[in-house]
Amino acid sequence: MLRDRIRYPRLLEKLATADEAAAMIEDGMTIGMSGFTRAGEAKAVPMALAARARKHPLKITLMTGASLGNDLDKTLVEAHVTARRMPFQSDPTLRKAINAGEVMFIDQHLSETVELLRTRQISPVDIAIVEAVAITENGGIVPTTSVGNSASFAILADKVIIELNLSQPITLEGLHDIYIPSKRPSRMPIPIVTPESRVGLPYIPIPPEKIAAIVVSEKVDSSSTILPPDEDTKAIANHLTDLLLHEVRHGRMGHDLQPLQAGIGTIANSVLHGFLDSPFHDLKMYSEVLQDSTFELIDAGKMTFASASSITLSAEMYQRVLPRLAEYKHHLLLRPQEISNHPEVIRRLGLISINTALEFDIYGNVNSTHVGGTHMMNGIGGSGDFARNAYLSVFVTKSIAKDGAISSVVPMVSHVDHTEHDVDILITEQGLADLRGLAPRERAALIIRNCVHPTYRDQLSDYFSDALKRGGHTPHVLEEALSWHQAFRNGKTMLKA
Amino acid sequence: MLRDRIRYPRLLEKLATADEAAAMIEDGMTIGMSGFTRAGEAKAVPMALAARARKHPLKITLMTGASLGNDLDKTLVEAHVTARRMPFQSDPTLRKAINAGEVMFIDQHLSETVELLRTRQISPVDIAIVEAVAITENGGIVPTTSVGNSASFAILADKVIIELNLSQPITLEGLHDIYIPSKRPSRMPIPIVTPESRVGLPYIPIPPEKIAAIVVSEKVDSSSTILPPDEDTKAIANHLTDLLLHEVRHGRMGHDLQPLQAGIGTIANSVLHGFLDSPFHDLKMYSEVLQDSTFELIDAGKMTFASASSITLSAEMYQRVLPRLAEYKHHLLLRPQEISNHPEVIRRLGLISINTALEFDIYGNVNSTHVGGTHMMNGIGGSGDFARNAYLSVFVTKSIAKDGAISSVVPMVSHVDHTEHDVDILITEQGLADLRGLAPRERAALIIRNCVHPTYRDQLSDYFSDALKRGGHTPHVLEEALSWHQAFRNGKTMLKA
Repeated sequence: MLRDRIRYPRLLEKLATADEAAAMIEDGMTIGMSGFTRAGEAKAVPMALAARARKHPLKITLMTGASLGNDLDKTLVEAHVTARRMPFQSDPTLRKAINAGEVMFIDQHLSETVELLRTRQISPVDIAIVEAVAITENGGIVPTTSVGNSASFAILADKVIIELNLSQPITLEGLHDIYIPSKRPSRMPIPIVTPESRVGLPYIPIPPEKIAAIVVSEKVDSSSTILPPDEDTKAIANHLTDLLLHEVRHGRMGHDLQPLQAGIGTIANSVLHGFLDSPFHDLKMYSEVLQDSTFELIDAGKMTFASASSITLSAEMYQRVLPRLAEYKHHLLLRPQEISNHPEVIRRLGLISINTALEFDIYGNVNSTHVGGTHMMNGIGGSGDFARNAYLSVFVTKSIAKDGAISSVVPMVSHVDHTEHDVDILITEQGLADLRGLAPRERAALIIRNCVHPTYRDQLSDYFSDALKRGGHTPHVLEEALSWHQAFRNGKTMLKA
Repeated sequence: MLRDRIRYPRLLEKLATADEAAAMIEDGMTIGMSGFTRAGEAKAVPMALAARARKHPLKITLMTGASLGNDLDKTLVEAHVTARRMPFQSDPTLRKAINAGEVMFIDQHLSETVELLRTRQISPVDIAIVEAVAITENGGIVPTTSVGNSASFAILADKVIIELNLSQPITLEGLHDIYIPSKRPSRMPIPIVTPESRVGLPYIPIPPEKIAAIVVSEKVDSSSTILPPDEDTKAIANHLTDLLLHEVRHGRMGHDLQPLQAGIGTIANSVLHGFLDSPFHDLKMYSEVLQDSTFELIDAGKMTFASASSITLSAEMYQRVLPRLAEYKHHLLLRPQEISNHPEVIRRLGLISINTALEFDIYGNVNSTHVGGTHMMNGIGGSGDFARNAYLSVFVTKSIAKDGAISSVVPMVSHVDHTEHDVDILITEQGLADLRGLAPRERAALIIRNCVHPTYRDQLSDYFSDALKRGGHTPHVLEEALSWHQAFRNGKTMLKA
């Protein structure tokens, strides 16, 4: 059985327990671990590391693809293992430690982490820990439900620990396309010209001697926690459909649109779900994560191909998809996140990019990360990679949060992740603002008219009127610009008396 | 004589006066004009248009490559011709009109304007006006000292007006490399793999029938207005040299470094000038504009090749370079700004990118455009194209302005053009902060220690201490975050009593 999964015979000698593998990790090391959007993370070794640290304290820098499932970040933080963390996270316990200044978090564009590693601009990975579904005849690593940064971690690390996960279906093999950009100054173009372009290997190529241990595990991925569509997300989806129909009518694209990207989470998933009832067909995705909506669209015959770096599904959808993976396989491809999120490919393909904003302001600047300007939520993730380089950069959010105590449309965002230069379309359940070709004053009028919740419309209008009296290309009343955030902090609502 | 410059004989019939050509422009049209960093703009026709508008008012949308010389923007604004303007400008009169809300200015990444035009996401160009040094045997347009957006303007416009500038040396012919990305969905990789890659044509290919008029002109480009290096810019250059030596010592690059990009203006030019006295050699540039420093480096044997979209020199340097252009030609290439600034190429080549900040904050966010958060200076230009995709993204500025009344290092920038995710290195004459791999709290400590002017160090330290008490990943005291800008607005100094 195990020989079917470990096909390079000498590596059978490397079988080890999770404790034995975790013992290889030393205090102060940098660990590069698989895992992207709660999919395909190493599971046994980090748990063993946490157990060990509870007795014999140690600290590491932990790099991953993106967020981890199975409460791994929580467990590692509670065991005081995580000193530094990059490039993304979404765990409440880790978030609290980051905001308390206990864990140093480096919030990076997801396409850039391995570029920094490759050029040795940040501290190198000592050990890579990669979940695999198999090891090939030549010692190559076949990843599981995500590729993330695993390929470059394994290639760049001194040692590699494999977690061979027997509960991940072997049909995953053949789904991956591992392409690593060549080193500068002789780097060549990435030859991807359509979402289905296969340009690499179906496994991560490393010298088998680097594999220091193979740990067998059977723990499954955490299922996603997204909520079903509601009235607001349906309204957002409808506004987007109307816009895209307008683009089709003006001859800017066909009914197959441009390749789609949608960020992780409930709103973006719901918006994509909305394409089920749209007149669009023969859709393609070039995204970072495939959620339930992708498989619904494939099943409905609406989508022909989806490329990403991971698959993260609800419990029900996992049960539907995993047994039939062989059937889905010719519709899917999983790539390293450096490639799924690469500016070069995103710009070339001309994506329609749909990401979630925490808040946006009247001039079109978007905050994706910081609550109240100071407290980290999850991280920028891939939203910057996509928004900057997309054909059409769309940000979606509900117009209010916390039962109306927070307006998602504010005078000035309290933290900027995406500047006015990178945002084409803003959508709330209230409506849509098409900012293309507009000056800041024109954008403000449109956003106030179309996107803000009625409760806050007059208040925002008043701000803009006052700002106009001060003048400028981007009028502001500086002493009032962040006052809505201050009001929420002090009085629990942004709404003025 | 003229036949040597207009080699497609039938086009001799299109010779016209500037007034005749200007008469083709109708009220409400969108005009795409050559001109990038005060180089190679059309000169006679816009002047004739302004003269006409003073008698018979009309309004246009004016798109260019970037800034114009010869007071063209001033003249057009004073004649009330400019209703909308994109994607960049640097004229005091236009700036005033923009900040008064009289001209709608759309401040764009310089690589993106023609992408929006090509996909018809903004209003199409009715007439292109392009300065040329010659028209080839097959009717192709040979640009002058800049390419800018001229190629796509001419290709996409219904009509093209040529300004044949006889004072521009014919030796410019052969310097240009016109490559236009193919249309989606069949767009191929841009085949540039080194700064000297020649991938296109030496002229702009259009059907000669589209040429509606040829106007002969002899007005020269405005010379640049940069100041010579001073003690502060020398100190900035020295800090950068130290950093790059550190990179070489750590094996991250050789003494030929990575290809260099430097923004327009005095500080970036001075920093590049500083490479004359550095131990680096065999340097290459992949930039948007070539200034005096590039030619000094070529003359000194320090630089082997420079690719850009324009050449903008001081009066003295023009006299030195233009007569010897044939000798420089095998060291130079001028490309469309879409290509000189293309994310795909910038990321592939791995540039060291040096741009000027108006101000930056303790967490590494950079403001390149807005004075006091509201008033447009020039525009983002290419700084975003480069900073986001560079190997090493460096921002430079003097630590104080207006004799110390303004600190360039502030608690929170009043406008964000480059987010913390895109800024690697900050340099003032005081010192350098290497932000790579650091969390926000770590960056703040470093920036306060190394970059801020001593006059403001305690004041900034106090802010950071207060912010730390509030907590968060990016600590701020929201009600104080923009108070320095407010203090300058109200009391003419950021310095607190």
